[in-house]
Amino acid sequence: MTTQDQNQAEVQALLDRLIAAARRKDLAAVMACYAEDAVLFDLMPPLRITGATAYRKNWQAAFQMTEGPFGIELRDVAILASGDLACSHALQRVTAVSKENGEKIDFWLRQTVAFRKTADGWRIVHEHGSVPVDMTNDAALFDLKP
Amino acid sequence: MTTQDQNQAEVQALLDRLIAAARRKDLAAVMACYAEDAVLFDLMPPLRITGATAYRKNWQAAFQMTEGPFGIELRDVAILASGDLACSHALQRVTAVSKENGEKIDFWLRQTVAFRKTADGWRIVHEHGSVPVDMTNDAALFDLKP
Repeated sequence: MTTQDQNQAEVQALLDRLIAAARRKDLAAVMACYAEDAVLFDLMPPLRITGATAYRKNWQAAFQMTEGPFGIELRDVAILASGDLACSHALQRVTAVSKENGEKIDFWLRQTVAFRKTADGWRIVHEHGSVPVDMTNDAALFDLKP
Repeated sequence: MTTQDQNQAEVQALLDRLIAAARRKDLAAVMACYAEDAVLFDLMPPLRITGATAYRKNWQAAFQMTEGPFGIELRDVAILASGDLACSHALQRVTAVSKENGEKIDFWLRQTVAFRKTADGWRIVHEHGSVPVDMTNDAALFDLKP
């Protein structure tokens, strides 16, 4: 296995760990995947979040808005790695049940992540999650499928 | 200058070139910044675009929807580089005039880009542009300011 293959495998393992932690709504385990100084562009406002501590609120809100486990599935995952930097992009299906009205939530998100190799292993230093927008009426498109 | 500083400067120069080309609506110069096999998550649908050729339509639509020059300004730019890989994230202000109704367009976009160093210099291999969403009514938020 080359260093690059090894790094890609380690980054894939971190993504797997993040998703497993999100599924069981384990906020501490989710946050352990992020570098303290990470910069986040989340699906929910604000425009830009600086620091994992501030980002914790968004994950907490996502868990609290939903009933039972939080379904996450990745598709079309690509991982680029070189030296101590890696970048991934993937489509992410989110399935859950709304706590407010019991309705089924099921949509595809685009997810881009940047990672740095630290003394403690790989950490997420940047994450960007979004859905596209219908520019004719400014509606976020939650019904698109890959 | 270290190799990493040099790479960051080259990636910054590519971003500058992309923005200058977009400002003058020079579609060929914009597209020259992308690798042929780039994977794109654009503000506009679809969910995922594979290949610079397919992505050209989205840039063309953005240019055609607007009157006169296309205003783009970057803020809070961070560039990470290691070996032949780089990643940037920034807030991007878009200012233009709608061709349809003459209204002023002015909003902030989040932009994440991944770059690969090729024999012909750095190229964009992935780009992700978005605005956050108000989860209570699925409205894309075009009025947020940094």
